[in-house]
Amino acid sequence: MFEAAEIGHKVGKEEFSRREPQLRAALLKAQYDVLQTGTFPVVIVIGGVDGAGKGETVNLFNEWMDPRHIVTRAFGEASDEEAERPPMWRFWRALPPKGRIGILFGSWYTVPIVDRVLRRTGSAQLMQSIESIRHFERMLVDEGALVIKFWFHLSKEAQKKRLKSLEKDPKTRWRVAPTDWERFKMYDRFRRVSEEALRETSTGEAPWTVIEGTDANYRSLTAGQVLLEALHARLAAAHKAKAAKPALRAAPAAAQRPADTRNVINTLDFSAKLSRQDYARQLEKFQGRLNMLTRDARFRSRSVIAVFEGQDAAGKGSSIRRITAAMDARHYQVIPIAAPSEEERAQPYLWRFWRHLPRQGRVTIFDRSWYGRVLVERVEGFCSEADWMRAYHEINDFEEQVARHDGVLVKFWVAITKEEQLRRFRERQRIEFKQFKITDEDWRNRKKWAAYERAVCDMVERTSTAHAPWHLIPANDKLYARITMLKTLCSRLEAALDGER
Amino acid sequence: MFEAAEIGHKVGKEEFSRREPQLRAALLKAQYDVLQTGTFPVVIVIGGVDGAGKGETVNLFNEWMDPRHIVTRAFGEASDEEAERPPMWRFWRALPPKGRIGILFGSWYTVPIVDRVLRRTGSAQLMQSIESIRHFERMLVDEGALVIKFWFHLSKEAQKKRLKSLEKDPKTRWRVAPTDWERFKMYDRFRRVSEEALRETSTGEAPWTVIEGTDANYRSLTAGQVLLEALHARLAAAHKAKAAKPALRAAPAAAQRPADTRNVINTLDFSAKLSRQDYARQLEKFQGRLNMLTRDARFRSRSVIAVFEGQDAAGKGSSIRRITAAMDARHYQVIPIAAPSEEERAQPYLWRFWRHLPRQGRVTIFDRSWYGRVLVERVEGFCSEADWMRAYHEINDFEEQVARHDGVLVKFWVAITKEEQLRRFRERQRIEFKQFKITDEDWRNRKKWAAYERAVCDMVERTSTAHAPWHLIPANDKLYARITMLKTLCSRLEAALDGER
Repeated sequence: MFEAAEIGHKVGKEEFSRREPQLRAALLKAQYDVLQTGTFPVVIVIGGVDGAGKGETVNLFNEWMDPRHIVTRAFGEASDEEAERPPMWRFWRALPPKGRIGILFGSWYTVPIVDRVLRRTGSAQLMQSIESIRHFERMLVDEGALVIKFWFHLSKEAQKKRLKSLEKDPKTRWRVAPTDWERFKMYDRFRRVSEEALRETSTGEAPWTVIEGTDANYRSLTAGQVLLEALHARLAAAHKAKAAKPALRAAPAAAQRPADTRNVINTLDFSAKLSRQDYARQLEKFQGRLNMLTRDARFRSRSVIAVFEGQDAAGKGSSIRRITAAMDARHYQVIPIAAPSEEERAQPYLWRFWRHLPRQGRVTIFDRSWYGRVLVERVEGFCSEADWMRAYHEINDFEEQVARHDGVLVKFWVAITKEEQLRRFRERQRIEFKQFKITDEDWRNRKKWAAYERAVCDMVERTSTAHAPWHLIPANDKLYARITMLKTLCSRLEAALDGER
Repeated sequence: MFEAAEIGHKVGKEEFSRREPQLRAALLKAQYDVLQTGTFPVVIVIGGVDGAGKGETVNLFNEWMDPRHIVTRAFGEASDEEAERPPMWRFWRALPPKGRIGILFGSWYTVPIVDRVLRRTGSAQLMQSIESIRHFERMLVDEGALVIKFWFHLSKEAQKKRLKSLEKDPKTRWRVAPTDWERFKMYDRFRRVSEEALRETSTGEAPWTVIEGTDANYRSLTAGQVLLEALHARLAAAHKAKAAKPALRAAPAAAQRPADTRNVINTLDFSAKLSRQDYARQLEKFQGRLNMLTRDARFRSRSVIAVFEGQDAAGKGSSIRRITAAMDARHYQVIPIAAPSEEERAQPYLWRFWRHLPRQGRVTIFDRSWYGRVLVERVEGFCSEADWMRAYHEINDFEEQVARHDGVLVKFWVAITKEEQLRRFRERQRIEFKQFKITDEDWRNRKKWAAYERAVCDMVERTSTAHAPWHLIPANDKLYARITMLKTLCSRLEAALDGER
């Protein structure tokens, strides 16, 4: 992979002076086109060998284009707020919004490669990281991002020369740290691991461009040219898509339809009941237990992400209140999911959930969640079939990240029968105090009961995983449902604290 | 101040059971009204003596109302991201948006009071903190927030009893930390300092409510009732304001008009010039110096916040690019200020600038800034006179916070003459490549030249402070202007690193 970047590429001073102004003007113009189009973000990933001109190129991009619309992020040590969340969280929050260019100096590649070079991880772990990266970049591209990845390379001999020449000049000596030489000793290993990582992640949608870093003129012109062409191609596609709206995508195969009418929802035991007396007793018991669990010392390195989904009037809100009542308000946060804000719409779909992930020792409760994409957005046609079909994988990837980082994911589907919903709607209309809880939209959604049920079944089938199983709660009897959810939450958390994941 | 909260207030069980359901229903309804009105946030500040029921009350508020629309924040140790910004930053980012209730458990009062009790600060410092708090809360209220402050009190005897009874019960023993008893020893001092802080900050717009914490029934009902009344009063005012739009405010005295036509802008030396040759030489020199300064070890505990304001076509953008070109892209961020986003509009005016404050060792460049309020918003009438008049103080307070926390504020007014602007506008129209830089709005703004100039003069007069002076840069000659700004930035940063603030 690196052979072509070790052959001594060079561009003379004269040629550079001739080509640079044109390239620069074209890049600036393309940047403004991206800004004005405003429909996609540009994510530039910068990686490579120390001394190969990574920093110089990033500075040059900022010089050539308008730095006001470029967001450059470097990733050193994780801050404590970052360290308490999944490793990808710091990158999630650094993504540029639509219309902007984000330059990520160091990226999701750094830690997997360095850890493998230093033998902190085995090859299986590296492959797992690479797999996650591939999924993540695929998602970015599917969400509309233009992802451009540059790897700046130096041959072993060239890196040695480069470090020595930096050291010789008093003006640049500061740039060579002792760790640079230590790393140089591992050059071969670094090259091998990087090559594997690059090869496995040089996908059609987000290919790597490897650039020889020895000659600054060659390096700069090549990087600039690649960037320019990528911007042009993407702009052309964006304009075409606009003209041919709505964008056509290959329709994926529809989810499997079973041959009978039995499904995971309609076979729940909706007759499950609890007496007032039992309820009161168990409520106290499990609220007490939950309280103790969230104060357990072992919880300080864990977090809970609880998801509540369910039909309208299924009792999500009142169940959430029985759970929050058991905890200290300092330790939980309830996030009601409404329409995305402007800033959220300028980011990948999952961004508005990523931003609410709790720190360690905290509980975040989502009242409706990222499952909206495969429920309401699917049923109401707010997104294309291709979009909600890929969402299953994206969600699984996301939840896996959270679970791997010691997050306890507890997902509830709060289910009621169609008859019970009707009874509750009517009751809400009757009782003045509850009228604000029922809207025309609720009645409209009800008409699509069958479509929603199918969507729920598909969702459970595709996203109920070992680390984040769905808990289907028959809730015709509210008391039974509340206790069941409290109990489930306790036992999931208990199991997690006892070391079972 | 605390006497009325040491007289053994009590509410019987029966009375509580009778009043609680009504209060609870009314609070929930008021919360929904706040949400639906959506025009103001509710900021509830919780402070007081340990063991006086702060946590219980916060939990109760979350139980009584809908926790999905309450944001509860507790403030323990600052995270490293918080520690690298002004102390208020962590509160700024915890403020609830319009329509929501934010409960701040621990607040901007905690550190000033505790530091004074532990004698880490003197009384002058306490007074300074109190003054800042008063300004901050005043700003919140002016920005439309409803600020409600609760102080939960216990007499010395009551606190002792409370701690002992918590210790006796195995279920609550965990709640008494050794530090609680240590603090108890300082009860008298804590009482004295708190009383002073409370007295000085119990303002008309944000008064304290001191509540005796001994009896849970009394405490809960009182806090709930105070909250309810405050919500009702504010909702009534909001509805009235809506009916009587635009809200009438007392018009403050207009800024002073001088008796002649000389002002700080038109007396600048616009003939100042630099030859191409001198420019090239000095550009290299000062870019090099700036580069060294941002890599100076002493800069790691400082930050630079540079503000660029100026007439259209004055050359802000190109000057910024000469400055960024001198630095490593990993260390700076340019923030172009455009119209506020939806999330920004739901917060105090300054919020959208607060969120971009740099960490230590970083430079943030604002291309236009918070001065928009006293420039374009004033001249174009986008806000009321009262709003922009109070903005001067708010800005000074904000900048003082930044400067006190070792931020170096460098503010440039890039000035050109009216004739020079015309020349540049025409040139931009002529050159195809620059056409995107000139809009009808630019021509419209030009017609208001005199009004803008007056606004600039007032701005300089009112916001050029020792810690954040304005640098007025005559920029008819772009080369001269760029070098002057680079030089100024260097010397301000140098002075800061040498310990002069």
